[in-house]
Amino acid sequence: MNPDITRERENATFDVEKLTHILDGGIEKTKRRREIESLVISDPDFQSEDLNFLSRSERYDAAVKKSAQMILKLREYGISDPEEIYCYKSVFRGHHHEALVLHFIMFLPTLYTNCNKEQFKKWVPLAESLKALGTYAQTEMGHGTHLRGLETTATYDPATQEFVMNSPTITSIKWWPGGLGKTSNHAIVLAQLHTQGKCHGLQAFIVPLRSMNTHIPLPGVVVGDIGPKFGFDEVDNGYLKLENVRIPRDHMLMKYAKVEADGTYVKPPSAKLTYGTMVFIRSMIVGEAGHALAKSCTIAIRYSSVRHQSEIRPGEPEPQIMDYQTQQYKLFPLLATAYAYKFVGQYMNQVYHRITGDISQGDFSELPELHALSAGLKAFTTWTASAGIEVCRMACGGHGYSRCSALPDIYVNFVPTCTYEGENTVMMLQTARFLIKSYRQASAGHQLSGIVSYLNESERRLQPQSVSSRPTVVNVNDLASLVDVYKLRAARLVKLAAKSIQQELQKRVSQEDAWNNSAIDLVRASDAHCHYVVVKLFAAKLGEMGDTGIHSVLSTLALLYALQGIQQHSGDFLQTGLLSVPQLSQVSQRLKELLAQLRPNAVALVDAFDYRDEMLNSVLGRYDGNVYEHMFEWARRSPLNKTEVHESYHKYLKPLQAKL
Amino acid sequence: MNPDITRERENATFDVEKLTHILDGGIEKTKRRREIESLVISDPDFQSEDLNFLSRSERYDAAVKKSAQMILKLREYGISDPEEIYCYKSVFRGHHHEALVLHFIMFLPTLYTNCNKEQFKKWVPLAESLKALGTYAQTEMGHGTHLRGLETTATYDPATQEFVMNSPTITSIKWWPGGLGKTSNHAIVLAQLHTQGKCHGLQAFIVPLRSMNTHIPLPGVVVGDIGPKFGFDEVDNGYLKLENVRIPRDHMLMKYAKVEADGTYVKPPSAKLTYGTMVFIRSMIVGEAGHALAKSCTIAIRYSSVRHQSEIRPGEPEPQIMDYQTQQYKLFPLLATAYAYKFVGQYMNQVYHRITGDISQGDFSELPELHALSAGLKAFTTWTASAGIEVCRMACGGHGYSRCSALPDIYVNFVPTCTYEGENTVMMLQTARFLIKSYRQASAGHQLSGIVSYLNESERRLQPQSVSSRPTVVNVNDLASLVDVYKLRAARLVKLAAKSIQQELQKRVSQEDAWNNSAIDLVRASDAHCHYVVVKLFAAKLGEMGDTGIHSVLSTLALLYALQGIQQHSGDFLQTGLLSVPQLSQVSQRLKELLAQLRPNAVALVDAFDYRDEMLNSVLGRYDGNVYEHMFEWARRSPLNKTEVHESYHKYLKPLQAKL
Repeated sequence: MNPDITRERENATFDVEKLTHILDGGIEKTKRRREIESLVISDPDFQSEDLNFLSRSERYDAAVKKSAQMILKLREYGISDPEEIYCYKSVFRGHHHEALVLHFIMFLPTLYTNCNKEQFKKWVPLAESLKALGTYAQTEMGHGTHLRGLETTATYDPATQEFVMNSPTITSIKWWPGGLGKTSNHAIVLAQLHTQGKCHGLQAFIVPLRSMNTHIPLPGVVVGDIGPKFGFDEVDNGYLKLENVRIPRDHMLMKYAKVEADGTYVKPPSAKLTYGTMVFIRSMIVGEAGHALAKSCTIAIRYSSVRHQSEIRPGEPEPQIMDYQTQQYKLFPLLATAYAYKFVGQYMNQVYHRITGDISQGDFSELPELHALSAGLKAFTTWTASAGIEVCRMACGGHGYSRCSALPDIYVNFVPTCTYEGENTVMMLQTARFLIKSYRQASAGHQLSGIVSYLNESERRLQPQSVSSRPTVVNVNDLASLVDVYKLRAARLVKLAAKSIQQELQKRVSQEDAWNNSAIDLVRASDAHCHYVVVKLFAAKLGEMGDTGIHSVLSTLALLYALQGIQQHSGDFLQTGLLSVPQLSQVSQRLKELLAQLRPNAVALVDAFDYRDEMLNSVLGRYDGNVYEHMFEWARRSPLNKTEVHESYHKYLKPLQAKL
Repeated sequence: MNPDITRERENATFDVEKLTHILDGGIEKTKRRREIESLVISDPDFQSEDLNFLSRSERYDAAVKKSAQMILKLREYGISDPEEIYCYKSVFRGHHHEALVLHFIMFLPTLYTNCNKEQFKKWVPLAESLKALGTYAQTEMGHGTHLRGLETTATYDPATQEFVMNSPTITSIKWWPGGLGKTSNHAIVLAQLHTQGKCHGLQAFIVPLRSMNTHIPLPGVVVGDIGPKFGFDEVDNGYLKLENVRIPRDHMLMKYAKVEADGTYVKPPSAKLTYGTMVFIRSMIVGEAGHALAKSCTIAIRYSSVRHQSEIRPGEPEPQIMDYQTQQYKLFPLLATAYAYKFVGQYMNQVYHRITGDISQGDFSELPELHALSAGLKAFTTWTASAGIEVCRMACGGHGYSRCSALPDIYVNFVPTCTYEGENTVMMLQTARFLIKSYRQASAGHQLSGIVSYLNESERRLQPQSVSSRPTVVNVNDLASLVDVYKLRAARLVKLAAKSIQQELQKRVSQEDAWNNSAIDLVRASDAHCHYVVVKLFAAKLGEMGDTGIHSVLSTLALLYALQGIQQHSGDFLQTGLLSVPQLSQVSQRLKELLAQLRPNAVALVDAFDYRDEMLNSVLGRYDGNVYEHMFEWARRSPLNKTEVHESYHKYLKPLQAKL
């Protein structure tokens, strides 16, 4: 054990183990999680070479192998609870992906929810036994977030009772679905349904892609890998071009909408049901943002405690880099953010389960709010976390660029969350739509409930403010007071955005153009709304902490989170007249004090995340702090070191020397 | 040609070709640049497979091959002017690297400047004929920016007149030098010189690493590749562990310091000479920040003009995504930044050449200022450009993640500039040291000259400001007025940082601790200083523009750059009392107008950068806008598509299906 990191642990003022229990949701959950992790980590079948040393084809191969093993192991161990499966897979995935992920998170669930009885009987057993290996083909080369724009067609032919599937344009080629390129033999394809000369919009169809015996693509199916990407090396994101592919009528998923034998289209009873999966996945991503940032902070903070560099006081030994105020200012607010997002993730999970309970009883009333919240928070947290991972990486200096730090992998595997499951700017604007609608309702005298209820209250307090009539009630040392300030900022920025739309309308432009011409203000309002929600939930979480030591350190973190947000957006708080210039100076001063206050607990706070070395897979983030020996050992295994003299010397350098 | 992009070009209000001449520094330079580019692009020897489809070993192989070819071609074409060589290499490099880059930019130049006469006669011909393939080994596993901490030792043995080179600890292993792993047979090694029982600090030694006949590592030399990184796949960054390696006395570079035969150490006459190379490379990086951002903007803006998505007005065809205000707000300020950095790069280049002229005549007076300026601007521009490349990438939605967009490569190959040649935070603090020193001189009544002269003037104007005594003279539509505001902001933040140090000192902490405890404020002051310099230089450049159309569009860009900076740092401007709340609302409003105003010229402005398709190497950034066809074609060449059925199907999936 590195003596520096040992000393850090000795200086901690709280019980790390207890904080781990809080993060897991209870001591029993911690215990079970560790059991499952040990199952994977101690399993010799899951020991493999570092993926960083493999080619893309080898990485894909390794991912398929692991996926196959994992399915058998889960059966062997009798793990079937979805949360436990998730936990099992998180360990063995590390920062990488499994080959069959879309089969399990999209193909199977869609079959469960959208098959009618006969279809269920036929397809679910095929999918569960993996005879049908499936994916979900929605995105096209020319169309992502805007689903109505999809161009793939399914034209019903009553003569043969078949749908004729086509990719009529180059932009209509399905593009990106995971597992589509090489792994899947079936896909659920979203296509525009044409029957009896009319288009009835998007429907889902089961399309066989490859022979279930030979895995060779079927006639008319042009399928393959879309090529290397930024990360996701082991995933075969694919393309699919359909050329007059005929599928039987009962391959359209018919639980809701139907096409009868003669081609008559029967409408579905309600459209709201499609919301659910999207909302769920976006809520999950919020938690993932917490995880990604927590891992990155673990690596950067442990490394900062063992790395010595430069000097603060001349003549003294080189200090730990964590002693530099600038390093603390980079890392500690991100550590606070990681805790905040983990708690927000827990909250979203609870809300999702509560609301899906309501939905199953026919109560859709909270769905729009959850939809708006999950969209905005997904964007808000993934943007911050992505940028934060890079800050952590760069805080490790040169070694942060090495793949052995794991930070490059964490970044490239997390950053796509900014784009998939709804492009972030589009998400922010969806939340803004809900906020503006709520604001207008409040202005019209309706009493709002739920998370936007502040728009009622604040509408009363939102009299035009001149900077001179600044409030004096804000206490920058009091979290409750800061939650209130964040709330008022959100309220004022929502109002400002609404005003911008109003001003545009006065120029006689259309509603739509007024919206687009106010989009910058709308995104800003959504951002402030989400920031308020996060601060509020973090503060609320503190109320649950019984342990004094933990309550104290988490209060410091929460205060740091709130104050740093104020400093970063100081213009907003000054502009809306919520804080004064002297108060902002106080914020800066207080922030520096909080950094110094957190310094002795930094390593303990990342230890509490409890990522085992095998999961972090980072030389810099090792629990024992012995980074240099292991970096050297890792490097020696680099493929370029397999031979002492690389063949290029004989091929190019020696001949060149002879010519000069 | 895609009709959308044709229409964009038709709508431009200025002469693109003339702007290209301005960026190149004259019509003749444009002409010569294009000639050189054509030499490479039309050369069949430089056609090769997309590097994205190759393994790391194959990429390294390709890089060595190209480096060797290039050396012969440059001779064949008689290109010997350094600027022309740079131009030649930029094309053929694309976003990638050559294998011998350290040989040419560090090994050879160090020999030129640090050899004594005898050494020059022996080593320069060996290096120029590439018999000696060299690199520059400075950074160690445990030490980067802080050179004094380096641990490698060179101990003089008068008995044999040799130096004994050692890596005494694990942290002393040389780590990171490019070309060290496999390519080089020599290195200039920086080591602590020990002779006659005393350490005399860092000196440079020529250390043979590999046999010049067989390329096999010499006894005691443990050398290899440090493993895969975030980018730079084709570069063999290496490690070097020296175990009692003996080199003759004349392998220490002795132009300045010397060790005599008996071991007597002779001091060098001056230490200032070592500044030069660092300052030059940092200045170059500022220009590179402009290039990297210009390439990224070219890709994202062209793609935004041909990509259609979603809807602004219901019922109308999907708009070009560049019509969304949020998309304009992401990309146009970055476009303005790219222009700004290109102009700042030109300026730094001129200043460097002027000052090196002075230095060669013994005048070192401007060196500290240039040193401070290059350090701060290097950090300021690389941070912004790195973040900006990612904004461009994400503005391309899903396709920005594909390697065929080139944006991932631009990012991973540029972002290391934040760390190498001086870690950015350390750079900012070096600039801050110069600013604080200057501020104290001004406060003491000295008249400052040069770029910091504003600290004189503003010291008089820097009376304590209450927010109520806000200036009313600022005109947010007038660039000169904005330059002034940026200047005052810098002055006030420098003062604020100085005040923070003062306050710390009053708590009876040491000077060094006071400095560290004010580091956040110091970085903020440096940042404001650099921002001021960039705005000022951009404004100054406008004065050189004779053409009305170009002057008009660049003025819009400069105004956008200045106003967006104010909006992003609105807290600073409000807090220092330089702008009022109503003025900030004006800024927001004006920004939106400027975005709309730039919209018709966006494609023409990136066209003016004049990156040929072969240099951009981006499917999304194609000049003809035909992105989808070429993306499909590119994907089909992906290595995973070489076989219809991947071997992993037979190895894992089929057996799995049999078991379930």
